[in-house]
Amino acid sequence: MVNVAILGFGTVGSGVAEVLTTNGGLIDRRVDDLVRLKYIVDVRDFPDSPYKDLFVKDFAVIENDPELDIVVETIGGAKVALDFTIRALKAGKSVVTSNKELVATHGCELLRLARDNGCSYLFEASVGGGIPILRPLGSCLAANQLEQITGILNGTTNYILTRMIRAGLTFDQALAEAQANGYAEKDPTADVDGHDACRKICILASLAFGRHVHPDQVPTQGVRGVTLADADYAASADYKIKLLGRCLRRPEGKVCAFVAPHLVSGDNPLSGVEDVFNAIAVTGNAIGDVMFYGRGAGKLPTASAVVADVIDIAKDLKKDRHNGWEEGAPDLVVSADSLVSPWYVRAQISADQARQRFGEVQLLARGGAPAGETAFLTAPMTEPEIRGKLAGLEADSLFRVLA
Amino acid sequence: MVNVAILGFGTVGSGVAEVLTTNGGLIDRRVDDLVRLKYIVDVRDFPDSPYKDLFVKDFAVIENDPELDIVVETIGGAKVALDFTIRALKAGKSVVTSNKELVATHGCELLRLARDNGCSYLFEASVGGGIPILRPLGSCLAANQLEQITGILNGTTNYILTRMIRAGLTFDQALAEAQANGYAEKDPTADVDGHDACRKICILASLAFGRHVHPDQVPTQGVRGVTLADADYAASADYKIKLLGRCLRRPEGKVCAFVAPHLVSGDNPLSGVEDVFNAIAVTGNAIGDVMFYGRGAGKLPTASAVVADVIDIAKDLKKDRHNGWEEGAPDLVVSADSLVSPWYVRAQISADQARQRFGEVQLLARGGAPAGETAFLTAPMTEPEIRGKLAGLEADSLFRVLA
Repeated sequence: MVNVAILGFGTVGSGVAEVLTTNGGLIDRRVDDLVRLKYIVDVRDFPDSPYKDLFVKDFAVIENDPELDIVVETIGGAKVALDFTIRALKAGKSVVTSNKELVATHGCELLRLARDNGCSYLFEASVGGGIPILRPLGSCLAANQLEQITGILNGTTNYILTRMIRAGLTFDQALAEAQANGYAEKDPTADVDGHDACRKICILASLAFGRHVHPDQVPTQGVRGVTLADADYAASADYKIKLLGRCLRRPEGKVCAFVAPHLVSGDNPLSGVEDVFNAIAVTGNAIGDVMFYGRGAGKLPTASAVVADVIDIAKDLKKDRHNGWEEGAPDLVVSADSLVSPWYVRAQISADQARQRFGEVQLLARGGAPAGETAFLTAPMTEPEIRGKLAGLEADSLFRVLA
Repeated sequence: MVNVAILGFGTVGSGVAEVLTTNGGLIDRRVDDLVRLKYIVDVRDFPDSPYKDLFVKDFAVIENDPELDIVVETIGGAKVALDFTIRALKAGKSVVTSNKELVATHGCELLRLARDNGCSYLFEASVGGGIPILRPLGSCLAANQLEQITGILNGTTNYILTRMIRAGLTFDQALAEAQANGYAEKDPTADVDGHDACRKICILASLAFGRHVHPDQVPTQGVRGVTLADADYAASADYKIKLLGRCLRRPEGKVCAFVAPHLVSGDNPLSGVEDVFNAIAVTGNAIGDVMFYGRGAGKLPTASAVVADVIDIAKDLKKDRHNGWEEGAPDLVVSADSLVSPWYVRAQISADQARQRFGEVQLLARGGAPAGETAFLTAPMTEPEIRGKLAGLEADSLFRVLA
């Protein structure tokens, strides 16, 4: 018998209970043992829940139950969740989470705590929702030196950008629609300003390169600056605007990581990732490029990833999973200044002035463009180079291009 | 020290040697031990190879070396490879392979032999080349009841179809180009007639549904019947023609599996999988749809998957990996007759006759179509239904449509 407790009975927590119940038979067969949901910890009351007999309000019950093996933390945030996670691990109970904020800020210490206490800390669901990505990074791609990761990591912003492109909505209209459909929170800051994508690229970078990359170290630009005009110009040359989280291996063990809107070429499979879907492209020195695609959020997809971690732990409760990474450092993350790419520029200048400043450019067109507005793609160059050429000219939009 | 032998120094075998050497440091760190390439078995001489001191001609050397832990079989085929695999497993040595023919025909018995001898038989590289798919199916998606798998599983045919669509080549021209580029064998039968895709969908179906699906049980149609006219008609409505391997869960533990060209909608991410790339879409009852994308063949991508299996085994030589499946049965695989889908039909009839026979249809157009030829998409129906409506009319092309 393997006993599981769920902390927090919100969307993901209730999804985990549902998957453990609905697919219980096949889970027990995979584990070769009975996996039982023993407790659900929540301060609220759920008198009508089919799980009503499992609810407890006091975390100490879990902490002190010697029969309890695995704690599923779906509280979110980095306060109560941090406290409970530390206490669970210190009590020798493995913890599974979907909490990207907690992993991105405290992952290194929590992984060490798990190792020191002979248990595990797993968080497949923290990146890409249900998409298998963290475990494949550590196992299936283990023979590779990883070179870079590029991901559409936030479903809300991808939905907004898709609706702008497909339905011609403005950013504000698309955001309102996403909120009406339950894809965006009332306060959409974490999604729209890129913080959610930032946390996820931090987790991916830490795992891929072996040292903790902290969200504070990652320059993060959201999608508020993307206009319908930009989407139209991009479409005219078969590009789509996508919010990308990127990390790249740099010499001497350094890491480059950032989040920003990009123009993505129609030839790149990331350009076809629409609506609330996520996709993560990984480049390794042997495998070349691989991409993982699926629902990056949602109750059951996320629960699917959480329960996969539960199954992994339940199969071998005391296994050392070697899934940690080293401490970070203030000088670990270097700027993207040396990264060469074409750029998309929209500015109030003439085509001739654009050519004078930027040399050979690919001019873009859109219906209804106001006089004096020019948008174009430049030759590949670094960010300092493009900013040098702008020299005093305020671009209305300036985005990197991903070929 | 973990000692490895490679059987067969062809493309994949030499790639495995290269990855083990180039990425040796990181592999040793992941395993927490030294992984050493001790032998390469090949009947040929390689006097100029950097590995020339490792070559042996007699497999008995491997079989009888008590220090040898893992055998990498990259011989191919199901004769010598079968004999050596059985002997290795009986000697308690784990075997890793990229040999889809051997796994698809003898996987069940070889997995049992491995279990009986306390070692492992792993074959991640046998499907999708470097793409992580088999391990994610068994671990990351373990919380799901798998419903269906749809894959572009053969890079050669996907290259041919891509060149027909993009460059307007005929099938024969595109095949000749694929051969000139090294993407197709001199004898392209295994690829072009769908046998390679058939073996791969058998392995996926066996793993997903837990019982051995044999290639003889899987109706297989290759791409020889796909014409440039079909590609053009499909493109006019934003469809692409792709050779798909499909398997679906059916009631009472039955499985439906087949390989056939399909029209794939531009909205489906599989439609954007071009050239020699492969992609595998998996549907589970919790996760919904996920897709895995990457290079389905090639020396280093395939070697990457082989070495990932080597690392997995080297981390824990005696672990029972629970990765087997049960025996199949003659009545395990049921026909696709009950599967409802729209159909693409090209035939020598008028549009009016098409409507009379098939009801509401979506007519397709192409430049230079001869008089009397009509191509169209039907409403969703089963194969017996569409064949009933054809009743005596010989369709020039008849393909299922994947929405």
